Amino acid sequence: MKPFDIHPIDRSLQAALQQKIDHLNKPKGSLGRLEELAMQIGLIQHSLTPSLNHPCHLLLGGDHGIEREGVSVSPREVTWQQMINFTHGGGGVNMFCRQHGFDLRIVDVGVDHDLSGIDGIIDRKIARGTRNFLHEPAMTDQQFDRAIQIGVELVDDCIAQGCQVLGIGEMGIANTSPSSIWMSVFGGIQLDECIGAGAGLDTPGIAHKRRVLAQALEHYRQTRSGGAARVDAEDVIRYFGGFEMVAAIGAMLRGAERGLVVLVDGFIMTACAIAAIRLYPAVQDYMVFTHCGDESGHRRMLDIVGARPLLNLGLRLGEGTGALCAFPLLDSAVRMVREMNNFDTAQITKYF
Amino acid sequence: MKPFDIHPIDRSLQAALQQKIDHLNKPKGSLGRLEELAMQIGLIQHSLTPSLNHPCHLLLGGDHGIEREGVSVSPREVTWQQMINFTHGGGGVNMFCRQHGFDLRIVDVGVDHDLSGIDGIIDRKIARGTRNFLHEPAMTDQQFDRAIQIGVELVDDCIAQGCQVLGIGEMGIANTSPSSIWMSVFGGIQLDECIGAGAGLDTPGIAHKRRVLAQALEHYRQTRSGGAARVDAEDVIRYFGGFEMVAAIGAMLRGAERGLVVLVDGFIMTACAIAAIRLYPAVQDYMVFTHCGDESGHRRMLDIVGARPLLNLGLRLGEGTGALCAFPLLDSAVRMVREMNNFDTAQITKYF
Repeated sequence: MKPFDIHPIDRSLQAALQQKIDHLNKPKGSLGRLEELAMQIGLIQHSLTPSLNHPCHLLLGGDHGIEREGVSVSPREVTWQQMINFTHGGGGVNMFCRQHGFDLRIVDVGVDHDLSGIDGIIDRKIARGTRNFLHEPAMTDQQFDRAIQIGVELVDDCIAQGCQVLGIGEMGIANTSPSSIWMSVFGGIQLDECIGAGAGLDTPGIAHKRRVLAQALEHYRQTRSGGAARVDAEDVIRYFGGFEMVAAIGAMLRGAERGLVVLVDGFIMTACAIAAIRLYPAVQDYMVFTHCGDESGHRRMLDIVGARPLLNLGLRLGEGTGALCAFPLLDSAVRMVREMNNFDTAQITKYF
Repeated sequence: MKPFDIHPIDRSLQAALQQKIDHLNKPKGSLGRLEELAMQIGLIQHSLTPSLNHPCHLLLGGDHGIEREGVSVSPREVTWQQMINFTHGGGGVNMFCRQHGFDLRIVDVGVDHDLSGIDGIIDRKIARGTRNFLHEPAMTDQQFDRAIQIGVELVDDCIAQGCQVLGIGEMGIANTSPSSIWMSVFGGIQLDECIGAGAGLDTPGIAHKRRVLAQALEHYRQTRSGGAARVDAEDVIRYFGGFEMVAAIGAMLRGAERGLVVLVDGFIMTACAIAAIRLYPAVQDYMVFTHCGDESGHRRMLDIVGARPLLNLGLRLGEGTGALCAFPLLDSAVRMVREMNNFDTAQITKYF
């Protein structure tokens, strides 16, 4: 992976931004989290008049070798069926993109189906699914680098259209499995506590998933790191990751590098965010954690990086839908700084 | 007060709505609270294709006699200054109404200033502020009836424009004081636990507010109900309420009577909602509790009626801004039912 040049956000405008926010026509602090968002977005953009032009949403699809072990309630074919469904506009991600004015880009990064030539799907297929990490690395070094690069190029394409805020979602049956392993390894949390029901596993199904993932992680530790507790983050990402997940990491890193506001939502995207933070801690400055989902362990995963999500609505659809649902709050924050009167213009007695 | 004809929502479509929601192209239950909202709105409208046409927001202004006791950090003049500011579009409520397409109606129900003839303010002034409930009832029976009726007529005007969803906000310096008393009386909670900082009181200020309100409530109990623990809800509302608060109660009751979705947000509007529920319990079926604010005790007040708010962003601006910020979630819920493909149309393997 070629290195990224990601800087902690420049805080030189912080005092001026805080003064502007405090002087708006409202009791100090009375817009709560919206004021914090306004500060973060202003610092990211180094601007007293931040904006969120041309929101883009990347919907990244990929299949997973580990699905062969029966770790998901949904069959593998659902990945490609849903990818096609998204092109018809009938998915959750479509509705919310329409509602909030997001430019939706549906990208095949590694779906196990021939989607070439289907209108509305951007073809960046690396392979028809990853390999099965129960037995071998999910992807090669070259495939990993390619997936990162795909994320980079997708972000550059968005920015070329004027994008300032990026949502990322995924479609990949079984991708809670690599997410749980990343959570365990990067968060130092017992694997069992990182594994939940995914899209709807029952209790025996969860027990089976726990056995499979424990075996995979043990195998990795024995063969790859010689049993050492300390692991190399990039290697863990490569060994267990999905193509769509690694592309998401590439998009997050490139987004930060180029000063985008990056929206992070559910269990899988939070796992990708934590992986990205392990690679480049400064990337977190550019992230807004939008949602705490219903998947068991999501709250604990958010705690790993001290993230306080904006919404808590029990969503567990994936596709980045939590990020999209939270977008109006960011929009409100930006409008506050740009449109709200201050005490001088409003001629109100300053009373606090 | 003339009686309202408010029915519990008709649940005869519940099974059909649930089946429609469950058959949409997503894991069952995976849109969490949005699915619950879709159900509630569908039942309110008795429709499998609910809608939220012509959202309206009532911004009701009034002054309070109790302000003379120094219970608020803000001087009384801020009420009228802010009312005028709203007509210029520079308040928090203006931004969020623009953002979410709400028809904003700014109404003087009892502001202590001559606002007649100011463009953009609907003149329904009952008096220049209520009387001081430390010594006497805040309003007469006739004023109470008039305030309720103002709420009714405002809602009828909105419905005449096609309104299906109603936000209500308030502007009234010192109106956390009657809210705290209502919370204590209607929730059976010690008064001290119902009193917080309002728009920014310091610790001595809060202590003073507690003394004043305790004295007012004690005086009421001795003179009005002869020391009886059991009180008449309408009388309590009338004795302590603000004109803008009673008009809000009238609007909530009329909204329920005519089948609107009624958005309830912060501390003061939740107090009005609880008062309305005490008068007509069925009104709660039509309410969506949108936000848990930062004002001390708001969470406990929501618990009185078992309300689970949608957002928790530390807002305490008032003006109904929490309700406006939550509106996109209701919009998402309705879009889900109306626009999302189901498993038949999407040709996806039904996997749960």
